[in-house]
Amino acid sequence: MIRIGIFGYGNLGRGIESAIAQNDDMELVAVFTRREPSNVKIKTQGAIVASSDDVLSFIDKIDVMVICGGSATDLPKQTPYLARYFNVIDSFDTHAKIPEHFDNVDASALEGGHIAMISVGWDPGMFSLNRMYAGAILPEGQDYTFWGKGVSQGHSDAIRRIDGVLDARQYTIPVESALEGARSGNNPTLTTRQKHTRECFVVAEDGADLERIENEIKTMPNYFADYDTTVHFITQDELNEKHSGIPHGGFVIRSGVTGNGNKHVIEYSLKLDSNPEFTASVIVAYARAVYRMASEGMVGCKTVFDVAPAYLSPKTGAELRKNLL
Amino acid sequence: MIRIGIFGYGNLGRGIESAIAQNDDMELVAVFTRREPSNVKIKTQGAIVASSDDVLSFIDKIDVMVICGGSATDLPKQTPYLARYFNVIDSFDTHAKIPEHFDNVDASALEGGHIAMISVGWDPGMFSLNRMYAGAILPEGQDYTFWGKGVSQGHSDAIRRIDGVLDARQYTIPVESALEGARSGNNPTLTTRQKHTRECFVVAEDGADLERIENEIKTMPNYFADYDTTVHFITQDELNEKHSGIPHGGFVIRSGVTGNGNKHVIEYSLKLDSNPEFTASVIVAYARAVYRMASEGMVGCKTVFDVAPAYLSPKTGAELRKNLL
Repeated sequence: MIRIGIFGYGNLGRGIESAIAQNDDMELVAVFTRREPSNVKIKTQGAIVASSDDVLSFIDKIDVMVICGGSATDLPKQTPYLARYFNVIDSFDTHAKIPEHFDNVDASALEGGHIAMISVGWDPGMFSLNRMYAGAILPEGQDYTFWGKGVSQGHSDAIRRIDGVLDARQYTIPVESALEGARSGNNPTLTTRQKHTRECFVVAEDGADLERIENEIKTMPNYFADYDTTVHFITQDELNEKHSGIPHGGFVIRSGVTGNGNKHVIEYSLKLDSNPEFTASVIVAYARAVYRMASEGMVGCKTVFDVAPAYLSPKTGAELRKNLL
Repeated sequence: MIRIGIFGYGNLGRGIESAIAQNDDMELVAVFTRREPSNVKIKTQGAIVASSDDVLSFIDKIDVMVICGGSATDLPKQTPYLARYFNVIDSFDTHAKIPEHFDNVDASALEGGHIAMISVGWDPGMFSLNRMYAGAILPEGQDYTFWGKGVSQGHSDAIRRIDGVLDARQYTIPVESALEGARSGNNPTLTTRQKHTRECFVVAEDGADLERIENEIKTMPNYFADYDTTVHFITQDELNEKHSGIPHGGFVIRSGVTGNGNKHVIEYSLKLDSNPEFTASVIVAYARAVYRMASEGMVGCKTVFDVAPAYLSPKTGAELRKNLL
């Protein structure tokens, strides 16, 4: 059995717990929380809830620690710290800061003699892998990544910060004609506005100036100004009833040419009812890989690019070749 | 520069030559043929055409030998033989015999101290990889593989063997409603007949009994009897004009559940103008991986499951993390 620890018990941590229950070769040993442990209820019988302050007393009890903090402030500290003491895995997703995070984590992991995987999930993660495979196969070509239809937490939060807004949910939606263009093999150049639209469901305070709120949303730099944005004002009840899920997904498309102008299109897509549960499922498969790589004596920071696919599967090499190749 | 040899110069061998020209870190050293070398014209300036009988005189001149023989009789002999003397890669695609081929090739490669990759292409190959990744991520779920729209050489050949048939081209076509069912996340059970149809374009001899030919096609065991098959009789000119390409493609879909019944659908698809050129492009990316793994001292038989993705790309680890993760 691979003994797993979960460090941080929000949406992602709960998804990890649920994914562990789907994998017979893994067991959840402990959940670590910054809250008062007695206030945190988990689903797994036999697993412990402990304070994050006590994590080092579990050094010999946990094979892989799954770190479920946020990318903005938690993971840049937690992953390098914990990689000294445990094999770890995180879902660090601030793309621009990945090289810096990698260097910090690599130094700690090497010092501690552990494996530390970073940026595991679907983007970064499975989408990155598919960009890489497709680019290596079709060196003359063009990449397209589309996200959605799905909820963007960052954009939803940005709307909630507007004066007079009580609650909000924002969907990122790929534009069908842009998808068709990317799939055509004609390598179109697509602007930000052409690729995605944004749809916002907003609960406003009684008597708030709806026109001002809508205008503030649509003109918000970085978040909305470069997109065609639709704003719907609805009640809190309707928001709770129809928009409480966290679906997401997207498309990675590469089109390229070979020989005398033969066109090829490679497409990978995800349609997810629950973004955190799917992210967790990817992480748990890679936690298996971390355990195996560590068992073989490998050390240092790794990303999805560095992991031979067979490490993810509970099946043996012979089973994989017989049934899946 | 990675020095490549091509063993066998048919459609696939020509595709390999063309793919090498798209990769700056590779050069074609020699093409080996069973024909009289002076009768074989290749496109690459500076590369040699040599007799396959003389291949062992190139032991120090070639880093990776790409073996382009057929799976029925060529590869079961060629790959184990050549793996003693070279790092090799093949596209062995008789799924049921992969375990036996692996064992034979592994023994030779270990004896010779080389890397030997087998069954590289898109199915087996990229489709296998996607089945494996998706199965590891969503352990509770169902796999679907669809092929086409594309030309099946085996089925085209089977039609050509019918008395009164001069030429033929057979397309395998996935059924749209079955694809939609697989994508629905409802895990439908799909029969062979529900998943694919077969469309045949046939050139018959003057005066041939068309009704008999059509009946022989539609009732042919294994090839057509289990499918809804359409037969069109056309002229040789029309066949040459409209059906001379070798397009193919297909879909690998896995749907699964997590948590409290949240559904997820992972889909990988290919739309290929030229089946042999795309297969060749996959093989050439893996030839780079073979070269690198051999440079690190690895030996033995490998499949796509065993190769860390980063080995396929000419980019460094730091470049991959910065630009693709």
